[in-house]
Amino acid sequence: MRTSRLEAFSDGVLAIIITIMVLELKPPAGHELSDLIHTSGVGLLTYLLSFVYVGIYWNNHHHMFHLVQRVTGAILWANLALLFCLSLLPFTTAWMDESDFAHTPVVIYGVNLLGAAIAYFVLQSVIIRHQGSQSPLRKAVGRDIKGKLSPIFYLAGIFSALLIDPHGGLGVVIALACFVAVAIMWIVPDRRIDRVARQIEDR
Amino acid sequence: MRTSRLEAFSDGVLAIIITIMVLELKPPAGHELSDLIHTSGVGLLTYLLSFVYVGIYWNNHHHMFHLVQRVTGAILWANLALLFCLSLLPFTTAWMDESDFAHTPVVIYGVNLLGAAIAYFVLQSVIIRHQGSQSPLRKAVGRDIKGKLSPIFYLAGIFSALLIDPHGGLGVVIALACFVAVAIMWIVPDRRIDRVARQIEDR
Amino acid sequence: MRTSRLEAFSDGVLAIIITIMVLELKPPAGHELSDLIHTSGVGLLTYLLSFVYVGIYWNNHHHMFHLVQRVTGAILWANLALLFCLSLLPFTTAWMDESDFAHTPVVIYGVNLLGAAIAYFVLQSVIIRHQGSQSPLRKAVGRDIKGKLSPIFYLAGIFSALLIDPHGGLGVVIALACFVAVAIMWIVPDRRIDRVARQIEDR
Amino acid sequence: MRTSRLEAFSDGVLAIIITIMVLELKPPAGHELSDLIHTSGVGLLTYLLSFVYVGIYWNNHHHMFHLVQRVTGAILWANLALLFCLSLLPFTTAWMDESDFAHTPVVIYGVNLLGAAIAYFVLQSVIIRHQGSQSPLRKAVGRDIKGKLSPIFYLAGIFSALLIDPHGGLGVVIALACFVAVAIMWIVPDRRIDRVARQIEDR
Repeated sequence: MRTSRLEAFSDGVLAIIITIMVLELKPPAGHELSDLIHTSGVGLLTYLLSFVYVGIYWNNHHHMFHLVQRVTGAILWANLALLFCLSLLPFTTAWMDESDFAHTPVVIYGVNLLGAAIAYFVLQSVIIRHQGSQSPLRKAVGRDIKGKLSPIFYLAGIFSALLIDPHGGLGVVIALACFVAVAIMWIVPDRRIDRVARQIEDR
Repeated sequence: MRTSRLEAFSDGVLAIIITIMVLELKPPAGHELSDLIHTSGVGLLTYLLSFVYVGIYWNNHHHMFHLVQRVTGAILWANLALLFCLSLLPFTTAWMDESDFAHTPVVIYGVNLLGAAIAYFVLQSVIIRHQGSQSPLRKAVGRDIKGKLSPIFYLAGIFSALLIDPHGGLGVVIALACFVAVAIMWIVPDRRIDRVARQIEDR
Repeated sequence: MRTSRLEAFSDGVLAIIITIMVLELKPPAGHELSDLIHTSGVGLLTYLLSFVYVGIYWNNHHHMFHLVQRVTGAILWANLALLFCLSLLPFTTAWMDESDFAHTPVVIYGVNLLGAAIAYFVLQSVIIRHQGSQSPLRKAVGRDIKGKLSPIFYLAGIFSALLIDPHGGLGVVIALACFVAVAIMWIVPDRRIDRVARQIEDR
Repeated sequence: MRTSRLEAFSDGVLAIIITIMVLELKPPAGHELSDLIHTSGVGLLTYLLSFVYVGIYWNNHHHMFHLVQRVTGAILWANLALLFCLSLLPFTTAWMDESDFAHTPVVIYGVNLLGAAIAYFVLQSVIIRHQGSQSPLRKAVGRDIKGKLSPIFYLAGIFSALLIDPHGGLGVVIALACFVAVAIMWIVPDRRIDRVARQIEDR
């Protein structure tokens, strides 16, 4: 099995996820700038965060499958598990936004991000195991510092929202800061995979 | 006619079906974990079941068209009939979920799954007939035990919901168990087609 | 310019149009079969009709671009005009269905189908003019009997809904019969184009 | 990194943006032609304007990436920024339409168009810088008169809506005229890029 159709299907699902979130943004009832800022201002930033996250996953997915030649059943299902986690993002984003960043919805948003990170890690591991000892993806990923830091940040965010301040407030702010920090960390595209991919092409 | 554009169109439709179901998941009004579980907890599991079903159909569609070289008008329309059946899944899933698994909506959900299975079988038969006596798809499908078991399970589910307990309850539970069982049976990717495909490529 | 990206974009838009119509189907409030038939029964048939129409356009678009090698700016915009007309189908379908097939919405649905047919004819003419005197598409289309009959049927439907019975009833039934008749006429795939395409490939 | 998957993902997102706007068009409550014109007549023209804008961006994106061979991380993110701006169009279009072209929503619509134009310019500049001194895109774009005129028109529209008439009316009409003028200016496909592309292919 080639990867082209798996990539096309994943692209389709990610394109829809990234776009339907904007359907959650309801136009404000009033017609003034203040209406826009009060009712949608936060929504736009939340949408931007989730947009960036889906963009990061698409980006990394793109880089990862650049190093994959053949697809197995296990890879197909690990990929679908990742898409399932990401498909819940519009739901958890909407809940977090509608609740004005209440305690529990922020925790659930973090759990959703954590779930997607785990699914991505499983997908990566399934591919590496299938490629065997000479796996180009294993080489490219290397020590995978970003991939190991992300769940720690998510867990820190989830626990700070849960523990520091059970009624929202500071805990929620720390949690959101963690989620934004991971996004910024990943926005820099994965140069390691780029480098290995270039070496393989040069041979 | 090559298969590439039919595959791309089917991928697009399946990607949309699998993703718009999440639009049915409305964020709970409250902001507590209990709100999430009471109003969306069941919804998430229902969504997961339908997500897995669309994933299975995409998976099998992917494997099947791997063995198809040319597309005829009959194959195009049989494929559209399958997509039509699957496009009703978000509707029947939403009705089943909103009714809290009432009697009739569970039966209709089963009828929808049965319709999709029949459409898939028709598509498979049209392709095999077009490929003639040396059909690689016929070889790959073999005795098609899974394909023959699925409608039996769907019918068992439909009838148990209809007959055992006309007011819901046990009959509905048995029906849902049947639908989940078929999904689990198919989650294992179709190794027979994989095997024949590999043999053909090896020649 | 190759046709691949125009085909991919058109496939995407058509896949979305064909799928979002199902979002218009709201699950019935009640949980009995009679609720389904009373509130959604007609809706399902209307959805089926529009699904078949989008399927026909995708099918013919697929066949047509099989004979196109290069895309010009005029072809790109004629194609977008066709996609625009088709993108209004979910809107006119929903209005026709919600009004229980009232007089004006049925006329507007017919105008929408007529507009799509004209846009398709313009696209076909632009391609033929660009291909010049040896146009394979002109050969394949031949006398284009179906393409000429369709607008006549649409106009007959529109006028029968307008004239015979201004308050709905018989006029609307004749109009719907015209629209269904055109769909049935086109469901048979365009064997003429198939034949020419095969001849070209055989050379 | 090849451009194929970036193009496919962008096509998917643009196809969804162009199609979900039609979901904003709610069928009128009444069943007369006057209901359609009063409640949706303006909406259809607004939808047409935004449809044409997305079509223009798809068209220019298509032409631009025809001259791109390799994709870098910076190009991926500049492309995502463009898609983000365009993904807000259904939201700003809906607000402008629902407010019956009130003052502020028209300004915000103009800001959205301006943002997309800036993102497109950034994407173009990133590609040209990456291609180096022999950049075929730089040659094709030339003095980029259209690209420089567009933001001036957007700014003229935004300021006329802001300054001339703070309570709507003439200022809004001038603003809309500016936005329509830019669309008409771009509808003519970019012959300069076509010309250079042809020269490159001819070599």
